[in-house]
Amino acid sequence: MVRRDEVRAGERALDAPPPATDAGLVFVGRLRTPWTDRLLCPRQGRPDGPVCRIEVFAPWAPDILDGVEALARIEVLYWLHRSRRDLVRQSPADDGTARGTFALRSPVRPNPIGTAVVSLLGREGDTLLVQGLDCLDGTPLLDLKPDRTGFTPIAPRQPGDDEIAATETAATSRPGHAPPRPGRSAV
Amino acid sequence: MVRRDEVRAGERALDAPPPATDAGLVFVGRLRTPWTDRLLCPRQGRPDGPVCRIEVFAPWAPDILDGVEALARIEVLYWLHRSRRDLVRQSPADDGTARGTFALRSPVRPNPIGTAVVSLLGREGDTLLVQGLDCLDGTPLLDLKPDRTGFTPIAPRQPGDDEIAATETAATSRPGHAPPRPGRSAV
Repeated sequence: MVRRDEVRAGERALDAPPPATDAGLVFVGRLRTPWTDRLLCPRQGRPDGPVCRIEVFAPWAPDILDGVEALARIEVLYWLHRSRRDLVRQSPADDGTARGTFALRSPVRPNPIGTAVVSLLGREGDTLLVQGLDCLDGTPLLDLKPDRTGFTPIAPRQPGDDEIAATETAATSRPGHAPPRPGRSAV
Repeated sequence: MVRRDEVRAGERALDAPPPATDAGLVFVGRLRTPWTDRLLCPRQGRPDGPVCRIEVFAPWAPDILDGVEALARIEVLYWLHRSRRDLVRQSPADDGTARGTFALRSPVRPNPIGTAVVSLLGREGDTLLVQGLDCLDGTPLLDLKPDRTGFTPIAPRQPGDDEIAATETAATSRPGHAPPRPGRSAV
């Protein structure tokens, strides 16, 4: 994170952001990293970065971690608790040029949820040792998932598994909501 | 999603899950997909799947989308609004064997946030056309980010950018919270 809380030239903050009351989150753990100030954090996690710790709280742990040991890479979702939420245009270089928040991976966003894919080095009780984080020490944990690229669903097949786009032309020219299409076999 | 709301043999639900009041979310848009029932959804999005639409609401749109057009792949975060949140062990195959929720990509989790990486086909006003989603029609949107594998930070370098693990042995043997390490040049 590379800002305190300022609004820079070219940026735009909403005057009255809608209240964040559509759904509620519960913090299920805490990330322990070497970085105690936003101005020291890496901009992105690196695979050979410092070893960090993911502490998972009771009553979710230990059951919720059963089988995690077998994973090589884990997707981590966390709450960027120090981020403002009202900027729709941002200037990461602070040079007067700005772009939309959804075109940036800045921690400042309407729902400040960070995602990382980390390597799992080991487990000590309800704590995981990982590499690849880039967030502040003490960041609240929201979720852990197997990295999608290494995970095969266990559940039985569903009809949607076999649905593919009819043709790109037909699909992209359809106005409004796409209606359900009959399942088609994927080769 | 492949369950209604049942608890299966071998699974474990918390008796009294902590309340989800640690942070609040605001729905910033809506996903339009062909799937109107959880039992029809794909288990995972596929790159050649049906074209879906991501509608971004005002007052965030249009500013927040500025520059998104240039992205080939986008990370999508959404709220799995139909999921129960109290299962810590789950049996995707419903065969009596179960594993921890954090070792599964099931939509049922303490904070039911789904993530997908989709291909961006186009933009029509405040709506994006994408391929690769697997969720229910009407799913609330939480966030969009450039796919991490295609994004280079714009912000100036920070000290953490250069921090690497000292040695794997030293790092993994350190008990408790890892202290800050001085920056080291990455080669």
